[in-house]
Amino acid sequence: MKRITLRSPGGLDRLELIEMLDPGPPGPGEIRVRLHASSLNFHDYGVVSGRMPTADGRIPMSDGAGVVEAVGEGMTEFKIGEHVVSCFFPGWLDGPPPVSDFSTTPGDGVDGYAREVVVRPATWFTRAPTGFSHAEAATLTTAGLTAWRALVVNGRLKAGDVVLVLGTGGVSIFALQLAKAMGATIIATSSYDEKLERVRALGAGYTINYRQHEDWGMRARDWTGGHGVDHVVEVGGPGTLAQSIAAVRVGGHIALIGVLTGRAGEVPTGALMAKQARLEGLIVGNRSQQMDFVRALEAMDLHPVIDRSFGLAEMADAFRYEESGAHFGKICLEF
Amino acid sequence: MKRITLRSPGGLDRLELIEMLDPGPPGPGEIRVRLHASSLNFHDYGVVSGRMPTADGRIPMSDGAGVVEAVGEGMTEFKIGEHVVSCFFPGWLDGPPPVSDFSTTPGDGVDGYAREVVVRPATWFTRAPTGFSHAEAATLTTAGLTAWRALVVNGRLKAGDVVLVLGTGGVSIFALQLAKAMGATIIATSSYDEKLERVRALGAGYTINYRQHEDWGMRARDWTGGHGVDHVVEVGGPGTLAQSIAAVRVGGHIALIGVLTGRAGEVPTGALMAKQARLEGLIVGNRSQQMDFVRALEAMDLHPVIDRSFGLAEMADAFRYEESGAHFGKICLEF
Amino acid sequence: MKRITLRSPGGLDRLELIEMLDPGPPGPGEIRVRLHASSLNFHDYGVVSGRMPTADGRIPMSDGAGVVEAVGEGMTEFKIGEHVVSCFFPGWLDGPPPVSDFSTTPGDGVDGYAREVVVRPATWFTRAPTGFSHAEAATLTTAGLTAWRALVVNGRLKAGDVVLVLGTGGVSIFALQLAKAMGATIIATSSYDEKLERVRALGAGYTINYRQHEDWGMRARDWTGGHGVDHVVEVGGPGTLAQSIAAVRVGGHIALIGVLTGRAGEVPTGALMAKQARLEGLIVGNRSQQMDFVRALEAMDLHPVIDRSFGLAEMADAFRYEESGAHFGKICLEF
Amino acid sequence: MKRITLRSPGGLDRLELIEMLDPGPPGPGEIRVRLHASSLNFHDYGVVSGRMPTADGRIPMSDGAGVVEAVGEGMTEFKIGEHVVSCFFPGWLDGPPPVSDFSTTPGDGVDGYAREVVVRPATWFTRAPTGFSHAEAATLTTAGLTAWRALVVNGRLKAGDVVLVLGTGGVSIFALQLAKAMGATIIATSSYDEKLERVRALGAGYTINYRQHEDWGMRARDWTGGHGVDHVVEVGGPGTLAQSIAAVRVGGHIALIGVLTGRAGEVPTGALMAKQARLEGLIVGNRSQQMDFVRALEAMDLHPVIDRSFGLAEMADAFRYEESGAHFGKICLEF
Repeated sequence: MKRITLRSPGGLDRLELIEMLDPGPPGPGEIRVRLHASSLNFHDYGVVSGRMPTADGRIPMSDGAGVVEAVGEGMTEFKIGEHVVSCFFPGWLDGPPPVSDFSTTPGDGVDGYAREVVVRPATWFTRAPTGFSHAEAATLTTAGLTAWRALVVNGRLKAGDVVLVLGTGGVSIFALQLAKAMGATIIATSSYDEKLERVRALGAGYTINYRQHEDWGMRARDWTGGHGVDHVVEVGGPGTLAQSIAAVRVGGHIALIGVLTGRAGEVPTGALMAKQARLEGLIVGNRSQQMDFVRALEAMDLHPVIDRSFGLAEMADAFRYEESGAHFGKICLEF
Repeated sequence: MKRITLRSPGGLDRLELIEMLDPGPPGPGEIRVRLHASSLNFHDYGVVSGRMPTADGRIPMSDGAGVVEAVGEGMTEFKIGEHVVSCFFPGWLDGPPPVSDFSTTPGDGVDGYAREVVVRPATWFTRAPTGFSHAEAATLTTAGLTAWRALVVNGRLKAGDVVLVLGTGGVSIFALQLAKAMGATIIATSSYDEKLERVRALGAGYTINYRQHEDWGMRARDWTGGHGVDHVVEVGGPGTLAQSIAAVRVGGHIALIGVLTGRAGEVPTGALMAKQARLEGLIVGNRSQQMDFVRALEAMDLHPVIDRSFGLAEMADAFRYEESGAHFGKICLEF
Repeated sequence: MKRITLRSPGGLDRLELIEMLDPGPPGPGEIRVRLHASSLNFHDYGVVSGRMPTADGRIPMSDGAGVVEAVGEGMTEFKIGEHVVSCFFPGWLDGPPPVSDFSTTPGDGVDGYAREVVVRPATWFTRAPTGFSHAEAATLTTAGLTAWRALVVNGRLKAGDVVLVLGTGGVSIFALQLAKAMGATIIATSSYDEKLERVRALGAGYTINYRQHEDWGMRARDWTGGHGVDHVVEVGGPGTLAQSIAAVRVGGHIALIGVLTGRAGEVPTGALMAKQARLEGLIVGNRSQQMDFVRALEAMDLHPVIDRSFGLAEMADAFRYEESGAHFGKICLEF
Repeated sequence: MKRITLRSPGGLDRLELIEMLDPGPPGPGEIRVRLHASSLNFHDYGVVSGRMPTADGRIPMSDGAGVVEAVGEGMTEFKIGEHVVSCFFPGWLDGPPPVSDFSTTPGDGVDGYAREVVVRPATWFTRAPTGFSHAEAATLTTAGLTAWRALVVNGRLKAGDVVLVLGTGGVSIFALQLAKAMGATIIATSSYDEKLERVRALGAGYTINYRQHEDWGMRARDWTGGHGVDHVVEVGGPGTLAQSIAAVRVGGHIALIGVLTGRAGEVPTGALMAKQARLEGLIVGNRSQQMDFVRALEAMDLHPVIDRSFGLAEMADAFRYEESGAHFGKICLEF
């Protein structure tokens, strides 16, 4: 059995594929999972690149999907052979967010899922949607649940709402697909015309090349007849927030989920107030929301867009591909 | 120009088609609408059958759809030629319900839309969904908005939820279509196997012949793995509520919208309490909700199921057809 | 050390005070609590009277309050000497209600708190409000949290709301005190004029002797200028629900928390629908809500009304006193 | 009869007290109000100081309170002699905010209440709380309703919540009083120790001199045991937001209602996201909320803190006093 280990102080050249010890049988309340896939997120990149310091020898990757190989005593929730997917905040089962740290997040505060086998408490996983490949299932843990919570839990999305998604990363494409499947109208941005074509094929009603149109927020608003959009899935942060505020309707909702353009910057708070809009930060979600999300994907038979998959040994290449920005949707690991 | 008049004390044989006076041009804030369709509801039946007393000479029908022929001074919301549909509670523009009476409901407290032309304040109408026939638009006023409010406004429906609809009347079929289009899973009941086939074709995942299975509520719950359904669209009332409570999940939602089986009866309140469920009454909705609903139908390109249309002169026949219970979805008037 | 044991098949004469074994030290994640008080609830009465069958030898009582004597390994939430109070649903930590059964409820599905010492997982308790006696703290578990969830969690009570409470039992008096302290206006009923005097002293703005006025619901509504009350704390069930529906405003809220008048009966569902009201069942609440509730009581310095306390050996007398209906507020055990 | 007129281009020296024409009797749906008081807000200051341009000759002041002198035909909501208070957004009766402009706001887009008599549609007013002076009532329109909506409508304040208010202006003191009366715990800041003493007398549990402690947000959080505050009433804007974010709990709420420190500036969006907090802009509220608010003030017998009152002729002095920052609570005009 293999695992990835991240040597201090991090960096894509500090990822090593090594043999791992067999974790043994699951104890009471635990399951043993044969992992087959993970997927790449901005948070994982922060860890493996060394920007977010972690322990020497850490096994990276928050997302993990696979098959239950054995169940501990008294386990009734999962059966052997069942497909499961990991949780980003294993201790956050339900209710509002407790603390916002990554001390128990796999691939950050504790070892993650770049490995072939793991034994963990059953509550660290949920079942995967029926009919999903392991790679598809792995995209739910971080990107998928973030999109779901932004739009459905916090946003209380309803059919007919207009949703603005920024760029074509994993969260944005997942948000586009979810919103479209629930009856919303989508506006999407990108700096690549060919990507805009692809989001139109996925159902976006209006697209804007933000490189060509720096006033993309105002353009989004104009397209809605001046009313403004109901939701913005804000993955950019300070560099995009002013246009997101320009785009949103009076009383609208901006889900603040990204720091791609930085962690602080000039924000037109007066405009946010004048719009009487809600800017709500969120980081992924809880286990109960993930179970709702799994059920929703099954009911809609909605599968995430996977751009490309790499093997466990090619993990550094996978992150280099992510760095290039050429992808559309999710990059996965399959093993 | 023609109109229907309902002679006291009501009854299907008391409907007369007569000439109407031209209502003249619209005043400030008003529009003149050339009506082309209406649709039949249980409430209309109560009025025309004489069970719900109304004024002698009343023009029946709450639903009305047509084309704006002229606009009053200062009117900016509607343009000549625009397609519009009437509101059930003309004075209830937004917010929670004010009083629950029908004193301003067209076709009950005031004259309704079984006529060819009407002049009314613009706020008594909203725009109709683009691409809808007048008959389709007419179904929104009462049945459509009831289904929308039950599931989306009060129910906060999300993808993956399981919705139980009772029978195949206008509200139930509209609820089924809406829920399906928003990613829900549907359970439907009927006493006719051929109607159950039709609801399966519309996307119901599970169907129950309630004549053959008196424990249909328990069967619905069993089909969800014992978890129970998230929402019940309760059009029956006391005669069906016990089974609806059996079907609903702990913490679930029953939208109480109908009195088909009576206005009072034995209810297992202890079971409702044990389920920690929410039984919420509602009567149609407000104008702002209708505008959201119109936008949603356009975004989803969702059209209501119309069983059959009759002419204005055949209105009594239309209600007799409704009495027969043979219909599936809405019965309309077109003129 | 003593404990009460309930001999099959139950009955007030089947309660025995016996010696108990020392439960030993707490294991990891556990605390050892020296119990000093409990309080009587309708649910406890169901168990000890034998109406709700339980295991032979069961230790009754869901409510328990006392002092932490020892903490298990790794315990950081509680310290030795801290005052704590038990949770009704020990497995329901946060979020919406899971299943509605009593299989893990102390004093029903598992042993309760009519004993001097217990070792339990720490999550089976929360801290008690600072400055509360143990008897006062014990009233929170069932009656207090029920009132809190009815009004604050489900009811989203705001200042100025009008709350109708029925009778003068523990939940009703707690609801009255909470609502008053949060700025609401109270209407209360009783069949005893002297009790009505006492609720007026606690802040009720209007009182009705329901024995003298069978139309107490209509009277409550009239007192609000015909508008209706915002919330009813419905402890009666089918025998009182018709008047509660008469009392509630359009769009109002009835918290269905009691079965004092039975588990099923005639309900005017048509009137509930016409009122567009929400009838929502609930059974106590979760641990997170209990922690919010504790904090609220401290902030308001609000103490429950305790009618009378009995010793552990007088438990049967305590329930006989409850049977008499003479009490006002809570009956407690102190030991 | 007198009125104030504001000459272009504005400025405190451009306010003139002149005779006004009698507005005559009210038309249908209108009331004639004898005004007796107004109160000063930051928005009024923007208008009269000329920073927010308005029409030449505008009558300033959004807040107006007085007595109904005459009612138009068909008026049933108000009676002659009834005390009323004006609405900030006369066209926003209920539901979510429509557009966020001041085109119909009295004292900005249309003439305000610095005059002795006005005739207006009845919906431009609500009744005033019983037992309030006109000056007290006048404080509700802008400052009071802003505090109410921030905490109760948007914040869904519950007893036990911790509320942080910034400074001792009208909105902050109103928020403090409301929150305290509803069972919350208050933290307040000021740069004057003597004002901090006064807020403690009003019930603040903890106070911070923000001049002496630039890390006041962190101090507020520390005082809550590191948990953070539930609500911040953010009247400052960019200059205070970083500390407000430091103060708020994970999943907490910041009501963005002020621009005292500017309309744009550096904001730590990464910290807001990490806190998973909700930053929600708002501008005053709707008429239905004002009616709820009036009822709440009556139920709690809560009266606003008025620092000082001026006559109509001393309006410029009143604003100069406001400029000085020496006040605590509201500054009023009485006439």
